[in-house]
Amino acid sequence: MHSFTQLLGIFEEKFDKRHFPAHTSSLYDPAQYILGLKGKRVRPVCVLMGNELFDEINPDAYHIATAVELFHNFSLIHDDIMDKAPLRRGMETVHTKYGESTAILAGDAMLIQAYEYLVKIKPDHLKKILQLFNKTAKEVCEGQQLDMDFEKTEAVSFDEYLNMITLKTSVLLAASLQLGAIIGGARESNQHHVYEFGKNLGIAFQIQDDYLDAFGNASLIGKQIGGDILANKKTFLMIHTLENASPIRQKELKKLMTENPSDKIEKVLQLFRDCKADSWTNQLKDKYLEAALKQLDDIAVLQSRKQPLIELAHSLVKRDK
Amino acid sequence: MHSFTQLLGIFEEKFDKRHFPAHTSSLYDPAQYILGLKGKRVRPVCVLMGNELFDEINPDAYHIATAVELFHNFSLIHDDIMDKAPLRRGMETVHTKYGESTAILAGDAMLIQAYEYLVKIKPDHLKKILQLFNKTAKEVCEGQQLDMDFEKTEAVSFDEYLNMITLKTSVLLAASLQLGAIIGGARESNQHHVYEFGKNLGIAFQIQDDYLDAFGNASLIGKQIGGDILANKKTFLMIHTLENASPIRQKELKKLMTENPSDKIEKVLQLFRDCKADSWTNQLKDKYLEAALKQLDDIAVLQSRKQPLIELAHSLVKRDK
Repeated sequence: MHSFTQLLGIFEEKFDKRHFPAHTSSLYDPAQYILGLKGKRVRPVCVLMGNELFDEINPDAYHIATAVELFHNFSLIHDDIMDKAPLRRGMETVHTKYGESTAILAGDAMLIQAYEYLVKIKPDHLKKILQLFNKTAKEVCEGQQLDMDFEKTEAVSFDEYLNMITLKTSVLLAASLQLGAIIGGARESNQHHVYEFGKNLGIAFQIQDDYLDAFGNASLIGKQIGGDILANKKTFLMIHTLENASPIRQKELKKLMTENPSDKIEKVLQLFRDCKADSWTNQLKDKYLEAALKQLDDIAVLQSRKQPLIELAHSLVKRDK
Repeated sequence: MHSFTQLLGIFEEKFDKRHFPAHTSSLYDPAQYILGLKGKRVRPVCVLMGNELFDEINPDAYHIATAVELFHNFSLIHDDIMDKAPLRRGMETVHTKYGESTAILAGDAMLIQAYEYLVKIKPDHLKKILQLFNKTAKEVCEGQQLDMDFEKTEAVSFDEYLNMITLKTSVLLAASLQLGAIIGGARESNQHHVYEFGKNLGIAFQIQDDYLDAFGNASLIGKQIGGDILANKKTFLMIHTLENASPIRQKELKKLMTENPSDKIEKVLQLFRDCKADSWTNQLKDKYLEAALKQLDDIAVLQSRKQPLIELAHSLVKRDK
């Protein structure tokens, strides 16, 4: 059994190479560029962890892990275009550096390359792996589309936001674990549990992300506080407050969102606190973390095999004390 | 055995349905929209023809034909963004109608949906089919990138242009036929011949396309003549003329391309004629058409099985008389 950190090291070593042909470098250099910006590699390592939960790591798991990481980077390239983001991990985004047209194509080529890696695996699991990969890939696109739709929607309900977040960020984590579990020979019920573990963990992580953007310690999380508030982003905090505040506070919040005064962040934070959105959000996060861990309980393998996933859950999501 | 027209009817009947889920309609309606603009459906019908050259049509061929048509439409959506094209088949392009971000995502979802159809086929040919599909998909992206690169390149050689055109437009026709041949149980050498038939035919068609844009009959081809000349597009005619004209004529051509006078089209056409680019282009087209038909000769099946492909070749490419 390996810890997350050990598996990360093993994966990085295999992944740290050129994944594209040398020719037509005007297409493939931009694709390779974003891979060089690194990243946490949580998803590909989750493929390996999903495998190792049930059996020793099958060489095919590395192909799938690579495919998952390429898919993730494909979605980053295209999302950055849509979000008009100038920077990613402190470096120029692909479209900023190489132009939008090339970024669209480099993303396309990255997605196709992901399938190239999937096709390398032995035939016995190929169909099942591709089906889960395709289903997840479409869900991630749906999540991104809903996220864009919500920017133009005034009222987004908690359920709608939860669904969007699940599609946009959680299903890929969940599927990564299940893809590994399939290769590890897990039976269907265990595949389901490990998928649900990942899905709930992903949601908990996103709730924490929303919370930290408002109430985090800027020096600890390495970015300015209140970015979501300034951009009027729908977040768990915002949606809870809009749904539960008194009519007077709701009006005040909407006024702040329209008028953007210089003390907008402080005032919105105060409204969040007044409506107890902060403690509610922390409880919600704990609820999803617990739900994730509960799914692990239901998997019939030795407790020691689960230890790395339990540690991963606690390192990604800090429990509220 | 069926003619192209008969197979087109069979394919259209199966293809004429919604290919995407009903929910997240803001993503999938735009994807479905472009499919409703129809098109010649040459590529998916070629899958069926490639199959029927060797055996009765296998139900899996329809899944592959659908995947090929979805892939083609994915590339159209993304290419139209890059080319800033307002219209496609006389209707608004996806990005014009739904915005660029949605068009990027709808293309992505279309590509993933293509793989969904491929995964439906029986496992015995799945790996081989996916490998050819992936290889071709990447080549199409490379072709589009090279086409964009050439817009910024002053000197593009004949070989470079031929390579770009082959990647951008011919390999998908070639692969469609081979994908069908694989499903039809063709052996490797026959798969190769049918691929090369499609590749050469695609090149001949593109040469004809370049020729007609300059020397065609506007009322017959249904568009204005000289669009490529006005846009200074590198075409077979232009490249031949730039490579073979006397220094004086080369200078004159470059001047016309820079200064864009009102009689640019006539004057460039005259230069093409002076350098015999028109007859050279027609000979080149015939050469590739002959090369395509020669590949068919080398396939060891009854001549009657080849008849529909021979007719397709002659209907796509008119021989110079």
